[in-house]
Amino acid sequence: MKVAILGGTGPQGQGIALRLASAGVDVTIGSRDEVRASEVADALNAKLRGRTPAARAIRGAANEVAVRAADRLVLLAVPFSAHDETLLSVRALLAGKVLVDIVVPLAPGNPRAVAMPAQGSATEAAQALVGPGVPVVGALHNVSAHALNDLDHAINCDVLVAGDSAEAKEEVMALVQQLGVSAYDAGPAESARCIEAITPILIRLNISKKVPFTHAGVRIWAPGT
Amino acid sequence: MKVAILGGTGPQGQGIALRLASAGVDVTIGSRDEVRASEVADALNAKLRGRTPAARAIRGAANEVAVRAADRLVLLAVPFSAHDETLLSVRALLAGKVLVDIVVPLAPGNPRAVAMPAQGSATEAAQALVGPGVPVVGALHNVSAHALNDLDHAINCDVLVAGDSAEAKEEVMALVQQLGVSAYDAGPAESARCIEAITPILIRLNISKKVPFTHAGVRIWAPGT
Repeated sequence: MKVAILGGTGPQGQGIALRLASAGVDVTIGSRDEVRASEVADALNAKLRGRTPAARAIRGAANEVAVRAADRLVLLAVPFSAHDETLLSVRALLAGKVLVDIVVPLAPGNPRAVAMPAQGSATEAAQALVGPGVPVVGALHNVSAHALNDLDHAINCDVLVAGDSAEAKEEVMALVQQLGVSAYDAGPAESARCIEAITPILIRLNISKKVPFTHAGVRIWAPGT
Repeated sequence: MKVAILGGTGPQGQGIALRLASAGVDVTIGSRDEVRASEVADALNAKLRGRTPAARAIRGAANEVAVRAADRLVLLAVPFSAHDETLLSVRALLAGKVLVDIVVPLAPGNPRAVAMPAQGSATEAAQALVGPGVPVVGALHNVSAHALNDLDHAINCDVLVAGDSAEAKEEVMALVQQLGVSAYDAGPAESARCIEAITPILIRLNISKKVPFTHAGVRIWAPGT
């Protein structure tokens, strides 16, 4: 499997790249700046070296090149301020692929709140922007970058997946499970309004002096356990 | 402590009444139909009998009488279709009290989706309706009625609390902890847009044949555990 992570030089993208490469997935991290993408890929590969026999080398490239390198799944991991612009720059290349939107529309200057786009969520905004021919799946919003990058520990967060294509969600859930976490189908794209908004609540708990831990995750829990 | 649960004859209200009474809290369950409220209270007291030495007898009453019996906290546990009407019927009695809104605006005919009121959430709609003099706190939306009523097991769900009064949230979190669950301050009333919307996602998982359990809860999870 060959996956692209646009905006993969950010902390979230780096962590996902590390985890997927550890699991044997071919990852190309994309950036507007291909030199920066290559430098970050080199640093990530140094972190992986000698760690996991199955690990694949991560590559860095311009966003457009990264999209072309993906066989099916293209992750979007940019800050929300670059969400639409990045999508517009690769939109023409997405035919036959699935866009996995992990972006949370945090309120400018206040990571404890969301400022949702008019469409209701980043996932829905992305679907409107790429059109009905490219399935968009929202996923991986609530996993902390710290947890993703800390390869010594399992990830303390389940992943809620939302989108209007059941088939695309199945593919994304299979990828997410490669991170060693449970993935749940949380329904249509509209569910991303809730899922994306969980992140600023977790950030609020992380900041709070009354909560005795940081880097909180969220888990679906069965009764009697 | 004397607590009222309006709409306390429904499954959610009954379960909260049982748990609070077990913990030694004085509970009056309210209903539009006081005879029905008394009958349900009798049935709940029969369930509690001989179970917990500290348990207090649950009383049933008309909603207005239940509000008057509460010293501070009034829980609203009606279906969303009766949310505004019930609040209007007791609004004049709420001075000096805190309204705890546990109502989830499920979409009519589709418990796997929300249909939020114009204010954004039931909590915000309630705050607009009772006015700024009565603090409204949203809480207990995600705990399944099954878990609440199953006194043989601990509740498999944390409670996210939202509201614009920090003091009122503290009081509600102290009450929620009497149920044996962790409570977290999830921020202002606006956070209820997310918290209330988690419930239909849990219902979706409960209905799904692909999820190997029902009565799912949601938990905040620390890293490294």
